[in-house]
Formats: sequence, C-alpha cells, structure tokens
Amino acid sequence: MFSNFTTMEFSSKLLEQAVYEMSQLPGIGKRTALRLVLHLLRQSENQTQLLTQALLKLRTEIKFCKNCHNISDVELCEICVNPNRDASIICVVEDVRDVMAIENTSQYRGQYHVLGGKISPLDGIGPQDLTIYSLIEKVKSGFVDEVIFALSSTMEGDTTNFYIFRQLESFNIKTSTIARGIAVGDELEFADEVTLGRSILHRVPFENSLKS
Amino acid sequence: MFSNFTTMEFSSKLLEQAVYEMSQLPGIGKRTALRLVLHLLRQSENQTQLLTQALLKLRTEIKFCKNCHNISDVELCEICVNPNRDASIICVVEDVRDVMAIENTSQYRGQYHVLGGKISPLDGIGPQDLTIYSLIEKVKSGFVDEVIFALSSTMEGDTTNFYIFRQLESFNIKTSTIARGIAVGDELEFADEVTLGRSILHRVPFENSLKS
Repeated sequence: MFSNFTTMEFSSKLLEQAVYEMSQLPGIGKRTALRLVLHLLRQSENQTQLLTQALLKLRTEIKFCKNCHNISDVELCEICVNPNRDASIICVVEDVRDVMAIENTSQYRGQYHVLGGKISPLDGIGPQDLTIYSLIEKVKSGFVDEVIFALSSTMEGDTTNFYIFRQLESFNIKTSTIARGIAVGDELEFADEVTLGRSILHRVPFENSLKS
Repeated sequence: MFSNFTTMEFSSKLLEQAVYEMSQLPGIGKRTALRLVLHLLRQSENQTQLLTQALLKLRTEIKFCKNCHNISDVELCEICVNPNRDASIICVVEDVRDVMAIENTSQYRGQYHVLGGKISPLDGIGPQDLTIYSLIEKVKSGFVDEVIFALSSTMEGDTTNFYIFRQLESFNIKTSTIARGIAVGDELEFADEVTLGRSILHRVPFENSLKS
C-alpha cells in the first residue's frame, strides 16, 4: 500500500460519495474514510445493512429522558425511574458518556441532568442550546437539595458551571463540584501546577481519604 | 468529559447496537464508535440519511472493471477505455488505493491489474481469492509486453510477486518491480540496512537520476 497522495482522484462516483460522507464524521479524514469504506466492500452486503440500519434506527427512534435528558429508549430512563436513586441530588454532566463514566464508579446514588454540551460562544453554543432551563425548573420545584457540577475542567466547562451557579444562587440548595486533584496512582512531580495547587488548597481531612 | 471506563453500560439498546456495529469497522474501538455515533445524534437526521444511503448505494451498486478489476461505476473503468493508455504494460497492484497513489504521480501511462489483496495463508487468502487467473489470461492473449509488480514490500507482497512471477515465466514478456530505495528527501543515516543495501545493489546510472 502506497501512502502519500495529496489529492484523491476516484475511479467511481459511488466510492467518492461514500468516502465524502464518511469523512464528515469527527476525526475521520479522507484517507481513513477510504480505508473504512473499502473494508465494507470486502465484507458481505449484510454487514453494511446492519451498520446503516443501526445508525438510521438510532437517529430516527432515539428518545431523551424527559427528566434528565439522557439518551433513552423510553420516556423516562432507567436511572430516573429507579426508586433507589436519590432524586434530591442532581449531578450535572455534559453528555451520556459522562453518565456512563460516573455510573461505572458505583459511587453515586443520585440522579443526573445531561446538559447536552457546554456553553461555547466560539462554536455558537449559548445557554439556550442546552437543557439549563429545565434544570432551573427542576430546582424551582423544591425537591432538589444539592446540585453537583461534573463538567470538564476547561474554559467552557468552567463558564457553564458559573453560568448555572449564578442561576441557582437565589435558591436555598447546596451546590458542589467534583474534586480536582492529583489522580490516584499519579506521581506528584509530574502533576501540573494548577492541579497541584488546587489539591493543596482543597485538601481533605486525612480520615476521609481512608474511605473507599 | 471523563475518560476511563472499562465496561460500557448503555442506557439505550439503540445506542448500544449502533455503537456495536460502528466498532466492527477496522481501527474503530468502542469509545471512538460512541463518539462518532453521538456526533450523528447531534447533527440533523438528514446527515445520517446521507451517510447511510451513500454506504448502501456503494455496497449494492458498485462494479469492478471487467478488465483491470479496479472499482468502477461502469463495466470498463476510465483508465481501461482511455486510448492514450498503453495496454501492453500492466502494473499489478493490491487495491484501488494503490491505483490512486500511482495515478497521482502522473508518471505512469500503462494500465493496471488490481489483485484485490495479497496471498496471505495466515488470513486464509490464497491465489484463488485474488484476480491472478485473469492476469494470466490477459498475458496469454499476447498483447502484453511488460508486467510491473507494485505490491507492498512485505512478506505477503513478496510472496504474491513471486507466485505471479512463476506463473508468467513461460511467457515471453518483461517483468519488473518498482524500485526500492531511499525515499526522496530522506537522510541516509536513518535508512534501514535492507533498503540501503538494495539501493546500492540496484544503483542507477547517474544521468537517469537527473530525469524528472
């Protein structure tokens, strides 16, 4: 296999079209797209059917939980209908991947609120594009005791946290954010200054560190 | 966005199915598949329609050129029907990407023969799975003067070259392989020994190196 060509001259319009559509996916360049599409050509027709049907079915039939906005096949997701989950604690996350990550830790028994993104003026995403309004409504209802912010520790994440925090200030609830610090198993000397600084500032009683 | 979870607990069967099918593509793991699928959910439904239609159309309607076995929308590809291409020289390549790469150099005016792979016993690919027989038939017809081997310089590529070479030995035609050597622009000291050795063994007259 040769490896360096700058422009792509396709011998087939069908191939060109498939590669173009595939390369619209994030992180998939034209060359990777070509490799993926040629792979499908080498597999049985059934394989392509399965892939395209699964994608179409997902895109057309997917629902979002009415309560937490997580991806769900039904009106209310498994977590929201689970009577063992504490509905008075709401963990605010960016998308479904974060819910999956936190669920994997088995450390959280509250509910979630999926924002569907972060405020990012550069990408044209404002508060109205996220599910912030529905979170405020939820807090207004009076059943919420604590809102945990669990967004990425980036400029956009911090902006979004702060925006929501300001909206919630007037309500008599606890707000918290997940702890930032040195990752378990990491060497101190390789930690960045900001993280190390925060981990000293927000130190926890030693007894607490013995739990879990 | 959180980054380390070992198992994936999906809140939606539709999502799980789409991620599974996506992760069947080569080089796409479950996490990448999830990222791609979530991207489609954030785009308009039309985007997914375009992607799936292009893939299905390609898979069901694609043709392979009757002469050179390259991917084509018609019975004979553009290169094979082009009267300016020299049909007496056949360049043997692995797949359509190699045709595209060589076409991009604008250095070749002959025709191609696309094998559709390399002989690879470990992957269960034998000579009968490739288009070798049709190449022999082409040579038998008597119109071919030269066959150029342009396969990857790997164990499988060399095996395939040699297998075809033995099949063609009895015919009165020239066989050649593309030159292996130090890539243009590369430093000698970083070249591997085998490549450097071959490039000395197969040195070319200095005047030739001045062309193009």
